[in-house]
Amino acid sequence: MRLSEYFSMNKTIVEAKLDNLIQSQADIPVIHNAMKYSLLAGGKRLRPILTIMASSLFDGNVDEVMPFACSLEMIHTYSLIHDDLPAMDNDDYRRGKLTNHKVFGEGFAILAGDALLNMAFEIMHQALIDNPKLENIKAAAYISKASGTQGMIGGQCIDLYYEGKCIDLNVLNAMHDKKTGALIRASLVAGALISGAKDEDVKRLEKFGQLIGLAFQISDDILDVEGSTEKLGKLTGSDANNNKSTFVSYYGLAKSKEMARDIIEEAQNIIGFYGDKGLLLKELSNYIIERDI
Amino acid sequence: MRLSEYFSMNKTIVEAKLDNLIQSQADIPVIHNAMKYSLLAGGKRLRPILTIMASSLFDGNVDEVMPFACSLEMIHTYSLIHDDLPAMDNDDYRRGKLTNHKVFGEGFAILAGDALLNMAFEIMHQALIDNPKLENIKAAAYISKASGTQGMIGGQCIDLYYEGKCIDLNVLNAMHDKKTGALIRASLVAGALISGAKDEDVKRLEKFGQLIGLAFQISDDILDVEGSTEKLGKLTGSDANNNKSTFVSYYGLAKSKEMARDIIEEAQNIIGFYGDKGLLLKELSNYIIERDI
Repeated sequence: MRLSEYFSMNKTIVEAKLDNLIQSQADIPVIHNAMKYSLLAGGKRLRPILTIMASSLFDGNVDEVMPFACSLEMIHTYSLIHDDLPAMDNDDYRRGKLTNHKVFGEGFAILAGDALLNMAFEIMHQALIDNPKLENIKAAAYISKASGTQGMIGGQCIDLYYEGKCIDLNVLNAMHDKKTGALIRASLVAGALISGAKDEDVKRLEKFGQLIGLAFQISDDILDVEGSTEKLGKLTGSDANNNKSTFVSYYGLAKSKEMARDIIEEAQNIIGFYGDKGLLLKELSNYIIERDI
Repeated sequence: MRLSEYFSMNKTIVEAKLDNLIQSQADIPVIHNAMKYSLLAGGKRLRPILTIMASSLFDGNVDEVMPFACSLEMIHTYSLIHDDLPAMDNDDYRRGKLTNHKVFGEGFAILAGDALLNMAFEIMHQALIDNPKLENIKAAAYISKASGTQGMIGGQCIDLYYEGKCIDLNVLNAMHDKKTGALIRASLVAGALISGAKDEDVKRLEKFGQLIGLAFQISDDILDVEGSTEKLGKLTGSDANNNKSTFVSYYGLAKSKEMARDIIEEAQNIIGFYGDKGLLLKELSNYIIERDI
């Protein structure tokens, strides 16, 4: 199967499952609407699809990884809602739609984010009750660590702290590695752990995740300069306008593109270990630097 | 042991454990400082102490329940930080100290709340790796459900939705039952589950928790009218000034006090089942309506 077909098929499956999981149990419909608005606002569903792909390296059962895959998308979505708030990035648009707080107000946007983070754990815990094997507990633990102060929240803290300040390249790397990389690694590792991966497999997927996460961020910075506002659903050139330090502002366009290609080559060497089973992940890593959204 | 000694001793143990758990692993110290500021800002530590008390009904091991007890305090603390934000209750003081966002700014206050909620799950997951028994997973699941849209977040949504609006008594009850009651029930049930409670014990503790949670809220409303600003660490009379619906505004002071006493009597009948082992919980329920803070 080609990557585009695989993505399209799994995006449909993941979105149906998310829709099903988010059925309202709230007394106040506005919180449910606010959660659903951002959770079902499109997006590539990269994290859950990485979980499914990693699982298939070890012939995992897609039904077993699905709650964890959906939880990762919920955690990603909550982080976007909170990042967009006036006290953080103060963004009015995301994926071409008004941001959550512009539609539901700041109070409900904060609560919708809290609720999505919380729901991610509710879903994982139900999955652990259904199948309390240690590897699944380890997957939940890995995800929670990756989304905390040592991972995603830590990265957002670095971002907020350095807002409007000059940021050194090591810090820029650390910020992206935590803010974006940690959850991408967790998506791969969770799928692998649940499906019986060994320690050395986990290390391989961590390294692969670190590399594609970095390449993803470099290509984001490139797209901010070269991309189309229409396709991205947000204004391009905003990094330069906001005086934001990016890989492009450090290295220039040509060198950034070269770096992204080298990083992806290294990632592909790692995933080459799995031969044909790793072909989709290999193709995915190409897509990361060739995408236009 | 008398209740006051028990509280004092366990408060010291819980706070030392919280202090230990919150050791910084963040690159940006401000997030660690913001988390610690609110987590170690005092308070009764009611929830973790309820977990320890419930555990002792079933001769539980305090070391086994401690991570869950501390997680409950982290979840409670995050909810206070987010509730105090300008987009929610917009409070400047909490327990006599400036609220989190007044000290660290709104962005870091939102992130500190997110990080405490997340850390609660990190800690529970590590405890589950250390001891992956099904009852402990069920305790984590119960806690996550109680803190979500069907529990605490749901209650906060009702509160925010009805801000400045007249609130009907059923809604007032539902709001408090979710906003405060759910986590109190979870504190008791988690301690019980981990320590080998049976289904009928869980039902008993849920009912006991529901009743003391309700009495706690009624006594809060009474304290807002009768309490001392100095002891409470926040302004009294604020409910009336904000036109807030409370049990006192519905029933008046005398009837509210009578209701609180009746509810506590019912709670004590339930806990009476455990004889001498339940004496501390019985004494605690008295304290709830007799406290002055």
